[in-house]
Amino acid sequence: MSVLEPSVSTAVPGPQTQAAIQALGEVFDARAVQIVADYDKSEGNYLVDVDGNRFLDVYSQIASIPVGYNNKHLIAAASSPTMVSALVNRPATGNFPSLAWNDALKNGLMKAAPPGLKYIFTAQSGSEANELAFKAAMMLYMRRKRGLGVEWTDEESSSCLNNAKPGSPELAIMSFENSFHGRGFGSLSTTRSKAVHKLDIPAFNWPKAPFPALKYPLEAHVEENKAEEQRCLDAVEELIKTWVSPVTAVIVEPIQSEGGDNHASADFFQGLRDLTKKHGVALIVDEVQTGFGSTGKFWAHEHWNLTSPPDLVTFSKKAQTAGYFFGDELLIPDKAYRQFNTWIGDLARVLVSKAIIEEIQANDLVAQTARVGDLLYAEIEKLALKYPGGKVANLRGKNRGTYIAFDTTDPAKLIASMRKLGVTIGSCGKSTIRLRPMLIFTEEHIPLLVGALDKALSEL
Amino acid sequence: MSVLEPSVSTAVPGPQTQAAIQALGEVFDARAVQIVADYDKSEGNYLVDVDGNRFLDVYSQIASIPVGYNNKHLIAAASSPTMVSALVNRPATGNFPSLAWNDALKNGLMKAAPPGLKYIFTAQSGSEANELAFKAAMMLYMRRKRGLGVEWTDEESSSCLNNAKPGSPELAIMSFENSFHGRGFGSLSTTRSKAVHKLDIPAFNWPKAPFPALKYPLEAHVEENKAEEQRCLDAVEELIKTWVSPVTAVIVEPIQSEGGDNHASADFFQGLRDLTKKHGVALIVDEVQTGFGSTGKFWAHEHWNLTSPPDLVTFSKKAQTAGYFFGDELLIPDKAYRQFNTWIGDLARVLVSKAIIEEIQANDLVAQTARVGDLLYAEIEKLALKYPGGKVANLRGKNRGTYIAFDTTDPAKLIASMRKLGVTIGSCGKSTIRLRPMLIFTEEHIPLLVGALDKALSEL
Repeated sequence: MSVLEPSVSTAVPGPQTQAAIQALGEVFDARAVQIVADYDKSEGNYLVDVDGNRFLDVYSQIASIPVGYNNKHLIAAASSPTMVSALVNRPATGNFPSLAWNDALKNGLMKAAPPGLKYIFTAQSGSEANELAFKAAMMLYMRRKRGLGVEWTDEESSSCLNNAKPGSPELAIMSFENSFHGRGFGSLSTTRSKAVHKLDIPAFNWPKAPFPALKYPLEAHVEENKAEEQRCLDAVEELIKTWVSPVTAVIVEPIQSEGGDNHASADFFQGLRDLTKKHGVALIVDEVQTGFGSTGKFWAHEHWNLTSPPDLVTFSKKAQTAGYFFGDELLIPDKAYRQFNTWIGDLARVLVSKAIIEEIQANDLVAQTARVGDLLYAEIEKLALKYPGGKVANLRGKNRGTYIAFDTTDPAKLIASMRKLGVTIGSCGKSTIRLRPMLIFTEEHIPLLVGALDKALSEL
Repeated sequence: MSVLEPSVSTAVPGPQTQAAIQALGEVFDARAVQIVADYDKSEGNYLVDVDGNRFLDVYSQIASIPVGYNNKHLIAAASSPTMVSALVNRPATGNFPSLAWNDALKNGLMKAAPPGLKYIFTAQSGSEANELAFKAAMMLYMRRKRGLGVEWTDEESSSCLNNAKPGSPELAIMSFENSFHGRGFGSLSTTRSKAVHKLDIPAFNWPKAPFPALKYPLEAHVEENKAEEQRCLDAVEELIKTWVSPVTAVIVEPIQSEGGDNHASADFFQGLRDLTKKHGVALIVDEVQTGFGSTGKFWAHEHWNLTSPPDLVTFSKKAQTAGYFFGDELLIPDKAYRQFNTWIGDLARVLVSKAIIEEIQANDLVAQTARVGDLLYAEIEKLALKYPGGKVANLRGKNRGTYIAFDTTDPAKLIASMRKLGVTIGSCGKSTIRLRPMLIFTEEHIPLLVGALDKALSEL
């Protein structure tokens, strides 16, 4: 990958960007637009805007670009006859798939399936993937409760049309404080990150468990953090035992991303696996943001070396498509059309995903990200020493590839300074800067990012 | 469009299809697969399967193919550099759109916006579109209740993170008996069609109004049907007045599609518009299946000549993308990031949609569908006379383009017979055959469809 200096020659946002935002605002909510991009001129790690400014992009479209702008292998896939057909002849996949669907799954997404998981259900967004996983867990719970092979009663079948029991049972999904799992009515009921996501929208009465609030540096707080994780696990078990409705699944992010890049140890997650197994609760690992290599493993949960795999693993973002993997055949509902919709994903996006997986594997990008991440972490650790007083606090993400984050005193100001210096960077939680470079971010890009950070921090 | 005889030379499903279903079933739930398609060989109204059988397709991928397989104008759009870029450089549209996004909206979807509606929010599926519309209606309701410009309280902001009042209020969406609005936890709570869609999934306590059960032929039951529609409107008003939580929106399909192709009169929908206006309730018209021309108007609700437009109109399926149109600027939430997600739709699919709209307009396909639909209806009316005793009962869809349906005695058997005769046709509700030809279905295709129906009905 070419290494270029960022280049900013206008105010940010520049005049062309401002005009474009105004034009778009005539028909579409454009208040959150930060950059109006010129994707034809963007390449690799660099995002170019319509004013001709070139940014080193370590935010990557909210952590969703895996192998760089205008990646050549992806362009080839996007230009293929198979792709054109997928765009023009969009199938109702559940009823009328083609052989290309079988091929795209088996030689694409399934090549990246988490260890131990052998089935897939496809979707179009992380929110949808999580809700489909909830539904799979709930249907399995009720199937077991009813007894395998036992038919639905007339009362069940009729009451559900009225949203009433017993057909529409009260079943819960447990999530963790500060989690983000999406914005549909089900996924939003498990999201606990910010009021802006949730306010004014009805929610299910589902339980929220505390997530470990670890203290940094980790090596200075070993016993304290261990106790904190045990406290959270105890709370999880207590909620499973006492909640007003059956907890059918626990959903957890390997690293809470929107909520502030909050980590927990492999022991904590093994404990969660043990507890969910013990109580017959499905464990859903939400890898929407962590999946596809950026933590230095293809799936972040591979860092845990669990004794048995999660029941369901959801994905989206860098996959450029979405869905869930699972291992237990019983998670396929008892009847066809239970888990179903018109399109069940999008072959066009699944073909892009296949090309991404090929590109990652051909270039060993997960190992590269692990290696580059270690170097990047060490450099930011130096900045933490250089800037005490909260400017670079609670540095985290060691041994997690480039999935690095730190707290700072004024994230909005730091992000604006970085933008002027030609770096697009993101925040999360209350006061956290999160790094989300692409998998093609190399050793050579580190000085550009760290140099800009150094300058911006010095002015903070 | 070329008119070809259907051609079936193997058992249905044929040996290649059966082998492909088995292979797909190794990783994906393939129980609902009916045909494994060879899209390279499919063209126009004809779907070809991997056994070489050629079907006249009047089901159109669950009513989602608008202008035919391998449409040349769509192929050109799908092969364009703009498309390749949209596939490879997928933007987080709310933060980093390109000029292509502005162009695709304004010269694409907005060219097809329902009369009176001037804003758009994009999505990826009909379920998502409906849920986003619910959220927009709820946020506006609470904004008005709170007072325009009044800030959120600390209690609201903190309680919503616990899914608790007042931040997570109890607000309702009203839907109709037999309706289908999707399968997310919110949209599914408004779906009332079949147990297979809803059973075992928790639902919100939202009201269900009766939908008119009209008697056919309409001209023989004028007074009776008028009274039935008034009964339903009275029930809607009573539910709005008395439901345990505020009804923030009513969602309705112009023709209840999955639920059995149930129609109501323009007067009924005007009555619904009047009632929702009177009580400050948003009217959401779900045009996911009815939109994009097949009723002989671009939007089915244009048949009603409403005195004021719906508040929100949702779309998907034949649009090949999804979202909602709206007219009131206040439906844009009070803050940015309230209605938001990573991708907010997919430019690639919005580009396909633009090409579809161009193709429809260039060839006047809506007017053609109105004209062809009238002829088709007249032919099926003849079959209804020829086959009394319930084989073709309650024929409906007059003056609604090709959106024609009838009840029959054994829909599964009729569909299977039609498949053997080389026609792919669909059912809905309990005993209804629904016609969903593409907009390129012409006068010349009518004899093929009606001839096969005649034969299949004679053997029923």
